[in-house]
Amino acid sequence: MNNKIYKVGIIGVTGYAGLELFRLLKTHPFIKINKISSESFKGIPLSQVYPNLKDISDMICESSEEVIKNCDVIFAALPAGLCEDFAKTCYEQDKLFIDLGADFRLEDEEDYKQWYGGTYKNKDIHKKAVYGLPELFREEIKGKKLIANPGCYTTATELALSPALKNNLIDTRFIVADCKSGATGAGRKLSDTTHFAKLNEGCSAYKVGVHRHIPEIEQVLSKVANSDITVTFVPHLLSVNRGILASCYAKLNDNVTKEDVLSAYHKFYDDEYFVRLYDDGRCVDIHDVKYSNYCDISVHIDERTRTLVVISAIDNMVKGSAGQAIQNMNIALGFCENTALQMIPPAF
Amino acid sequence: MNNKIYKVGIIGVTGYAGLELFRLLKTHPFIKINKISSESFKGIPLSQVYPNLKDISDMICESSEEVIKNCDVIFAALPAGLCEDFAKTCYEQDKLFIDLGADFRLEDEEDYKQWYGGTYKNKDIHKKAVYGLPELFREEIKGKKLIANPGCYTTATELALSPALKNNLIDTRFIVADCKSGATGAGRKLSDTTHFAKLNEGCSAYKVGVHRHIPEIEQVLSKVANSDITVTFVPHLLSVNRGILASCYAKLNDNVTKEDVLSAYHKFYDDEYFVRLYDDGRCVDIHDVKYSNYCDISVHIDERTRTLVVISAIDNMVKGSAGQAIQNMNIALGFCENTALQMIPPAF
Amino acid sequence: MNNKIYKVGIIGVTGYAGLELFRLLKTHPFIKINKISSESFKGIPLSQVYPNLKDISDMICESSEEVIKNCDVIFAALPAGLCEDFAKTCYEQDKLFIDLGADFRLEDEEDYKQWYGGTYKNKDIHKKAVYGLPELFREEIKGKKLIANPGCYTTATELALSPALKNNLIDTRFIVADCKSGATGAGRKLSDTTHFAKLNEGCSAYKVGVHRHIPEIEQVLSKVANSDITVTFVPHLLSVNRGILASCYAKLNDNVTKEDVLSAYHKFYDDEYFVRLYDDGRCVDIHDVKYSNYCDISVHIDERTRTLVVISAIDNMVKGSAGQAIQNMNIALGFCENTALQMIPPAF
Amino acid sequence: MNNKIYKVGIIGVTGYAGLELFRLLKTHPFIKINKISSESFKGIPLSQVYPNLKDISDMICESSEEVIKNCDVIFAALPAGLCEDFAKTCYEQDKLFIDLGADFRLEDEEDYKQWYGGTYKNKDIHKKAVYGLPELFREEIKGKKLIANPGCYTTATELALSPALKNNLIDTRFIVADCKSGATGAGRKLSDTTHFAKLNEGCSAYKVGVHRHIPEIEQVLSKVANSDITVTFVPHLLSVNRGILASCYAKLNDNVTKEDVLSAYHKFYDDEYFVRLYDDGRCVDIHDVKYSNYCDISVHIDERTRTLVVISAIDNMVKGSAGQAIQNMNIALGFCENTALQMIPPAF
Repeated sequence: MNNKIYKVGIIGVTGYAGLELFRLLKTHPFIKINKISSESFKGIPLSQVYPNLKDISDMICESSEEVIKNCDVIFAALPAGLCEDFAKTCYEQDKLFIDLGADFRLEDEEDYKQWYGGTYKNKDIHKKAVYGLPELFREEIKGKKLIANPGCYTTATELALSPALKNNLIDTRFIVADCKSGATGAGRKLSDTTHFAKLNEGCSAYKVGVHRHIPEIEQVLSKVANSDITVTFVPHLLSVNRGILASCYAKLNDNVTKEDVLSAYHKFYDDEYFVRLYDDGRCVDIHDVKYSNYCDISVHIDERTRTLVVISAIDNMVKGSAGQAIQNMNIALGFCENTALQMIPPAF
Repeated sequence: MNNKIYKVGIIGVTGYAGLELFRLLKTHPFIKINKISSESFKGIPLSQVYPNLKDISDMICESSEEVIKNCDVIFAALPAGLCEDFAKTCYEQDKLFIDLGADFRLEDEEDYKQWYGGTYKNKDIHKKAVYGLPELFREEIKGKKLIANPGCYTTATELALSPALKNNLIDTRFIVADCKSGATGAGRKLSDTTHFAKLNEGCSAYKVGVHRHIPEIEQVLSKVANSDITVTFVPHLLSVNRGILASCYAKLNDNVTKEDVLSAYHKFYDDEYFVRLYDDGRCVDIHDVKYSNYCDISVHIDERTRTLVVISAIDNMVKGSAGQAIQNMNIALGFCENTALQMIPPAF
Repeated sequence: MNNKIYKVGIIGVTGYAGLELFRLLKTHPFIKINKISSESFKGIPLSQVYPNLKDISDMICESSEEVIKNCDVIFAALPAGLCEDFAKTCYEQDKLFIDLGADFRLEDEEDYKQWYGGTYKNKDIHKKAVYGLPELFREEIKGKKLIANPGCYTTATELALSPALKNNLIDTRFIVADCKSGATGAGRKLSDTTHFAKLNEGCSAYKVGVHRHIPEIEQVLSKVANSDITVTFVPHLLSVNRGILASCYAKLNDNVTKEDVLSAYHKFYDDEYFVRLYDDGRCVDIHDVKYSNYCDISVHIDERTRTLVVISAIDNMVKGSAGQAIQNMNIALGFCENTALQMIPPAF
Repeated sequence: MNNKIYKVGIIGVTGYAGLELFRLLKTHPFIKINKISSESFKGIPLSQVYPNLKDISDMICESSEEVIKNCDVIFAALPAGLCEDFAKTCYEQDKLFIDLGADFRLEDEEDYKQWYGGTYKNKDIHKKAVYGLPELFREEIKGKKLIANPGCYTTATELALSPALKNNLIDTRFIVADCKSGATGAGRKLSDTTHFAKLNEGCSAYKVGVHRHIPEIEQVLSKVANSDITVTFVPHLLSVNRGILASCYAKLNDNVTKEDVLSAYHKFYDDEYFVRLYDDGRCVDIHDVKYSNYCDISVHIDERTRTLVVISAIDNMVKGSAGQAIQNMNIALGFCENTALQMIPPAF
């Protein structure tokens, strides 16, 4: 722990992830939000864009350059493909850069080309990045200068399946992740699918088997399993604001018992502050994690079909985005990991 | 087609399924709702219990005995275990009895014992029942006197998977049905899980691997596949009023192509009035079937993982309950199958 | 009643009002939807824009000219200011034109200028229009060729207050209409206020005292009261899809009793098919009218403050728009008034 | 400010208000939650009743006697009529008692008799109580031992109307408060009106002119206005979890200008931490205050009808209940008033 007050900046503060970062960082005792930027609202007070911040902050959206120049820690919450240069500049100036987007999540450029359609202009900078899922890679994150904050679906799916894969409990030939997300996952941008009268009272899947979080999930789970893992991943959109529920399915390997499974999950997570494990048959609910950084996981075994069902619930904007980014900052800078992240989820 | 106006009765009219039956049957040109019954509201006008019916009906809830005595066709929408005697009485008097509950769905009494904890007091009457999923068993339904109306989850799941199983397209060793249901599926009874502040903004699974619709799904799909089928079935509760979305997953068998799959589904459903098939990558949405008797099905193939993903959407109260019951009546009595069931789903 | 099948067309079919018209008109036994038009989706099948119509209609959106040329009855559901020419053309060709928009609602051009910022290019055609609120102006509507379909808020407010004003029961110096509307009132157009994550779990007023429905309400109520009426009208947006609840407040005049009030409302509405009156203290709920053409009205008297509280509930898309337009067509053409409008509101 | 850590207890912790108190108090730096009680769940861990608290607290519900015996500050969140004895005991032992219920809100026992149907068994203890709306009665609250925490509707309505009444800006003969509340206002108790499928997609008024918050509103506003005030108060239920929107209407007095109004509101609230004033035509939204202790107020003048429209928005569970109770504790004990109450409302 150190006593310095870090100057923190947010690039892309008017997107949903950026805004949530702003809200959570305001309560952090060891940092000061020094600069914020927004392309769409440059020169405009953030509280004018988001009236929930009225009388709370009079900060004005500036340029990303101003953010980088005047801050020690830079969070970027931008669409894919815009962060390479920012990251490089920060790296060269020894600033901590945390990307909430996808630019540094995939290690293999071929994956990036296939799923995002872009290339790595600066291959060196990508090698400096660490994948910021603390429950899996905490040690690698410490002291790092460039952190790729995981996606929301990926966080939920990876945390649900890692203990099973790590311990060789399931048949890796057929893994299904049926995921459900609230509307904030689609962000601030208007669209037909998030028009109120269309989404309200609706529920549907989308991007079946082609969602960009797939290569990220497979990259991480392959590492955990130490073998090539593929996942059938299908996202669904829910008529709620927040939350991801990831229902994951796989066949248990022969001779694996319920005790083996529960023991593996407990060993993996019992020391984790942000993971709460249900092993008594109750099912996790996004209701119980919203506005918090918790990942609730319930482990179920369908003995009839010898299937492991693991369900994880996170708040997509917190553990799935801004909260985890702060968790990563805390680790990288040596703060207590749950600083500014001890929000108790409201029951309603 | 015949010209007789049938006298129809509803036992258990104040439950959600009974009420929906009442609403839909009111528009049927060849029947007259002659009697309705409710244990809880005997002697009370239905429109007093449900003000949406104000000025529309002045019918009063009576006893189930009155319903049976005064009607030719009897629908029962009751909790499990209450219909055996009613069915027997109707059968002996040559009346058509359609059970929206579970009493006659399972052919094997052992299954009933295991999943419902009851016995078949009168084994003969169970042998007279037909399972009323018209798209699979239309011919058997014609002229029958005792019809077991399928469950809501089962309707969605069976319609999603039958063409694949019928045509031997998928590996039957690991089939997953991740299903999502609106709140009306839990009925009129108050409960913590359907308390507004609890369900609203929530989403969770429940009864993982132990839901009573499981033996029904497996019985029907085994028949379709002509082999023993097990399914990992996990229901989830959504914060919407109506709708079931069934996302079904299975590995494609070797050499099965996308064309094989689409061809099988088209062959199975192209002549079905109430099934609408999406084969172009778009995903079905419960939004688009609500208040209608349609079952929308979208077929997807995840080539990377060689997985068939079939998603079906129904309105749980219509195709999943009251609408399908009327469809069954229409078939049994020789009416045009879509009589009183041509509701166009509203877009919002 | 006549036996002709009328050819009907919808201009602006892809807006929410146009689409609802299409859905309801499909069930009308004496008309045929002959042509539909959409500027935004010309040449595209309607069912491609709205998948709820899949397999139900293969009609293609054409031009408004095609609609007018090929139909006897033309409905237009367009933004303000676009219908004058269409109406004139139809009038000259003796076709029935029903405008679901605002172009012909205001008799006084000065009002139109003030509230809509436009002028009446063709003053004669405006004189041919009748204001289509059947419960108030049924006789004038019969046989008319140009009908101005009322707004949604105005329908609810006018029906709530007319009996009181007609019978001189309230102090006209201070009338408040606090109205709440579902999101479909804002239509298909994307906007920040109807972005799911913004509206969901929200509620706010908007356009306080400046909403365009104000002059319409005052014009009609002044006619009913036979004196100049002003109303303090404040609309609010609800996180539901459908429904308007109009809570109207005014001081009772001296010596007016509860019996006077109830008697006036009963006299006014007891013969009206689409108005359902609650006089027993229960409050109307938008839940109980949705997807129907009913207007439910509950009359309350706060004796402590000598205040009349009248609350009306309609489905903004049906009685507040498409349903009422069909009601007007039925009257104008001599059909039974409730043809194609006998939908029973579902309880859930 | 003092340095003592106060031992705090919550009687009725498993109700919604009690639970919200628990959640908020957990973050208070100068107190320790020492005991909690629940009649319904005595002996059971709170986190078992509310899984959102899993791994956060292992406190067990005990008896109210245990709470009083072991705490310095006692909050009670109980149905009406149960707090007199608790309050007396606490008063005699010089403990601070804050009643979130209605037992001490009404000064006049006759009002209590009329609206609550009970009597004041111990009239002396009622005289010790102060009405805990800090923005109006801050000085009286300081150092008090018995605080009546206001109702949710009353907080919103009183804060909306006080500046106008204090400054004689409006005609007091006809004041309307049209209020809308989220479902948590009805609490944890199951009921038909808060059954999901009934409330979802619904909106209705209830208890028109007879809600128990009326005498409380009138008592306080009469004090503020220094004359007898009556209000026509109509509550409505919204299909959202949290929030109250109070839309208040009254005629402006002659010669009162917009500047007079805005000046009065600014003077009244510019120094208030928890009141945020909108004077630029924008309307407050419950969305922007949820999960916070803010009361947002927008002031509108309808010049056409010379009507003042003031709309206030609060989170019914925070400023309308638990948050305000903590604000009162802070004032009574001399803490900084916003301690543990600086939550930033999330934008979504």
